[in-house]
Amino acid sequence: MKKYIGVDLGGTQVRAAIVNEVGDIEQLVSKPSMALADAQTIMDNIIHTIKLLNISDDVVGIGMGVPGPVDTKTGLMVMATNIPALENFKMAEIIEKEFKLPTFMDNDANVAGLAEALVGVGKNLPIVYYVTHSTGIGGALIVNGQVVSGARGHAGEIANIIIDRNRQKHNELNVGAVENEASGIAITRRGQEILGAHINDARDVFDAVAKKDPKALQLIDEVAYDFALALANIAHVVDPYLFVIGGGITKSKDLYFDLVIKYFKEHVHTMMQETPFAFASLAEPGIVGAAMLPKSQGI
Amino acid sequence: MKKYIGVDLGGTQVRAAIVNEVGDIEQLVSKPSMALADAQTIMDNIIHTIKLLNISDDVVGIGMGVPGPVDTKTGLMVMATNIPALENFKMAEIIEKEFKLPTFMDNDANVAGLAEALVGVGKNLPIVYYVTHSTGIGGALIVNGQVVSGARGHAGEIANIIIDRNRQKHNELNVGAVENEASGIAITRRGQEILGAHINDARDVFDAVAKKDPKALQLIDEVAYDFALALANIAHVVDPYLFVIGGGITKSKDLYFDLVIKYFKEHVHTMMQETPFAFASLAEPGIVGAAMLPKSQGI
Repeated sequence: MKKYIGVDLGGTQVRAAIVNEVGDIEQLVSKPSMALADAQTIMDNIIHTIKLLNISDDVVGIGMGVPGPVDTKTGLMVMATNIPALENFKMAEIIEKEFKLPTFMDNDANVAGLAEALVGVGKNLPIVYYVTHSTGIGGALIVNGQVVSGARGHAGEIANIIIDRNRQKHNELNVGAVENEASGIAITRRGQEILGAHINDARDVFDAVAKKDPKALQLIDEVAYDFALALANIAHVVDPYLFVIGGGITKSKDLYFDLVIKYFKEHVHTMMQETPFAFASLAEPGIVGAAMLPKSQGI
Repeated sequence: MKKYIGVDLGGTQVRAAIVNEVGDIEQLVSKPSMALADAQTIMDNIIHTIKLLNISDDVVGIGMGVPGPVDTKTGLMVMATNIPALENFKMAEIIEKEFKLPTFMDNDANVAGLAEALVGVGKNLPIVYYVTHSTGIGGALIVNGQVVSGARGHAGEIANIIIDRNRQKHNELNVGAVENEASGIAITRRGQEILGAHINDARDVFDAVAKKDPKALQLIDEVAYDFALALANIAHVVDPYLFVIGGGITKSKDLYFDLVIKYFKEHVHTMMQETPFAFASLAEPGIVGAAMLPKSQGI
């Protein structure tokens, strides 16, 4: 059975694993990612981390998941807010030369989506749309087992989809961007506005929802509506066989996701109302999905 | 050189052509489509039309473009407003049996997009997004030379993308659906509301724009903004290498499309502002695109 090296590079940790072609993790190592160091130091650290693995001859490729949009043609992270030295740095090329294995790179949402489409809940489906509902909101389109990353690595930058043009401007995203109205950060902000300053994070809002606080119920109804409009817009573009929803906010799925489905159905054509939704199924989508990148390219 | 039969079925005419693999039309025939007849009569008429062609041995497949969303797995038109008898009717199977050639089917916007992506202005680009800006608004996603039709044939049903949830309800589409605010029909309706009852169609509005009527200029600015928001939402999902814009409204492109580009750039991430736009280049995208369906499937 073929095996792949998956690398999951984050702002805190870099992890590397040997993953077999059906998605089982056989070895896993991790180190601090030294995200604010210079490029050479970060890359040496990644290489050192990979070398902690016992790399046998049946390892045929390397995939890296990174925290920012990637030009997949050149293997560059085109924006790297959390690891600034690696912006436009030829990471994939350096890794490929060091290990003499074909190396592919994509952003963390895309590799997580790929994992779910190849070895997770969307296995063998021709079109899977993965959405991470977390502190922020990201997406990934997987068609016939390959990530559609986009011309500039910006496919799936669904955070910026406008769900209501009559909102307040908050940051560099569009007025009414779904991330500013329905992400974890947005739920916290809207919770503070409506429930008061004792709200520290989205969990506090969901705690109030669980206690049937009327204002919290109203807020989460509005958040679910906002989130559903973005999903409806995505569905009209790609009509997926399955939406896979991941991310930390889904821990509270019993408190809001039925509303999302209800409002989604109200905003799509009749036949699309049957679109199935599933929650992310894999314990380690980031590292497994990274390892699946070479597999998805026929390696 | 391989050749294909392309069939373009519309509410008025059915046309059939022999098209070679680089997209040249070698023969073209047409007949009334008998759209309101029973299914058997319509199908016999299509078969008769195809048999008017001189079908040589180098013809290796058949593609059909039809006016409604298609389940491409089964070759059924799942909605057929203009040709009601063919809704959920096994058209592709009947044609395949009659001519003993592999037969594929997709809707008219998807085949037009495929034509532009394979032999038109988007030739050889990995991700092309085609938009028809006409009486209505439709879209098509072509990835690696294949149409992404969707699980229920509804990928590209972008008419229903919401660009402003604070509009009036007009029909079965969403409140604020882009087709109700920026299509040819919408331009006519909005023109009548603002410019008066003498407006008969979108051309009358563009005539007023050409004469620099201030109300018409304001209206077309708003229409361009509405249309641009839908394009920005699409771009955040698929980040195409190229948008191709077709359809009758583009005859007036000099009077509105610079505004569309301007507002598009205002609503996408910095790198995506470079997304190129081109206008549809083919004289016969419908019939050429239909013929390209078998080619796109490796026939």
